[in-house]
Amino acid sequence: MMVSRVTSFSFFALVFAIFSFNDNITCISVLINTLVIAATDRLAVPFTACYRISNMMKKLPIQKAFTLLEPGPVVLVTTADGGKQNIMTLSWTMVMDFTPRFAFMTGPWNHSYKALTYTGECVIAIPAIDLSKKAVQIGACSGAKTDKFKKFKLTPMEAEKVSAPLIKECYANIECRVIDHIKKHNIFILDGLAAWVDKNRAEKRCFHAVGDGHFIADGKVINHCRIMLSKLPKVV
Amino acid sequence: MMVSRVTSFSFFALVFAIFSFNDNITCISVLINTLVIAATDRLAVPFTACYRISNMMKKLPIQKAFTLLEPGPVVLVTTADGGKQNIMTLSWTMVMDFTPRFAFMTGPWNHSYKALTYTGECVIAIPAIDLSKKAVQIGACSGAKTDKFKKFKLTPMEAEKVSAPLIKECYANIECRVIDHIKKHNIFILDGLAAWVDKNRAEKRCFHAVGDGHFIADGKVINHCRIMLSKLPKVV
Repeated sequence: MMVSRVTSFSFFALVFAIFSFNDNITCISVLINTLVIAATDRLAVPFTACYRISNMMKKLPIQKAFTLLEPGPVVLVTTADGGKQNIMTLSWTMVMDFTPRFAFMTGPWNHSYKALTYTGECVIAIPAIDLSKKAVQIGACSGAKTDKFKKFKLTPMEAEKVSAPLIKECYANIECRVIDHIKKHNIFILDGLAAWVDKNRAEKRCFHAVGDGHFIADGKVINHCRIMLSKLPKVV
Repeated sequence: MMVSRVTSFSFFALVFAIFSFNDNITCISVLINTLVIAATDRLAVPFTACYRISNMMKKLPIQKAFTLLEPGPVVLVTTADGGKQNIMTLSWTMVMDFTPRFAFMTGPWNHSYKALTYTGECVIAIPAIDLSKKAVQIGACSGAKTDKFKKFKLTPMEAEKVSAPLIKECYANIECRVIDHIKKHNIFILDGLAAWVDKNRAEKRCFHAVGDGHFIADGKVINHCRIMLSKLPKVV
């Protein structure tokens, strides 16, 4: 146990030394953690919450955000209503434009619906296949009874433009604002405001729902850029 | 050349003998082809057009049709306006219900738009990755100037419930009727009427557009049926 404490202390001391040169917030948080760990072997403040988004994820030009959703991956949609954050799992999404504009389908049967309609904001987080089990479990329980961030050990991170949190463990996150709600069909129309990608993540393959309990992981990549050249928006 | 004629004749004579016991239409068509081939080495009637759909593809219960679209594959949407058939490539689709109800996004910039709004019918055909190049090429040219079935050597097959054709070479086909058109967002809402799957097809892996000219083939299948059990509709 003593070895563990010493190791942790050394590690955080090193991180502290590195970050203290360029990031005051991180510096102070790491310092607190370092001292607390030395005494208790536990993190006093969730470590990742001390990080700025830009330290964890790289910003993707918003005009490229549609490339994250166009393949049709399973996504986690986060909302925040006052102090309460929630996550729902969705597969029924659609790209609508390169602006970028998206649509997804959900209704009052989802606990997130109320926060979504009230705040008009959400984050579409895209998990990789190492999170597939968690994503399905998140979809199988309700935010009415469960703090899903806590239960599934996911880390909420402050977004840049919306109140809903990013999910640190996901491959990518898109901050979105609801611009229309077609109640007749339960369709939400959203504009992407900011997009983040964790390019250092080892596992980047996303996964797709079949709808019968099976999921398909991303396989090999096929390049048809030459054929599509005339159809691609310049920013891509 | 003579060997080729004798081989073709023998083959069709054999097929004729097999089918003559249980399918009069196929029997007559094959007989015609057999006789014509013996004389000219060419098919007088496109062979596949003589087949009933049920000989080529198995019907999928319509409540399961959403499982074909939920993974978010690239699709080919066919329309028929009078005698003129067309195909467009789409990736911007969304499942909306298990009924099954779907949405896709297209507008007047696509040649198929006119036929789609006029007839209110289409077929959503799902190609496997062996057709990925053709699918991208279909999306890169206009039906205004091109007979896409002819140019890309695809075979239209008569659908059961709509005027738009199925595509024989695709892994699956869903016959659809437009039930709403949200012009403000260029969204078409469709009900699936009949679904067909070619289970004998060797290549069944579909593919997903990234939107930048790259496409992702289906990879390994992950089974989370146990977790999703309570959420799955009974028919699935």
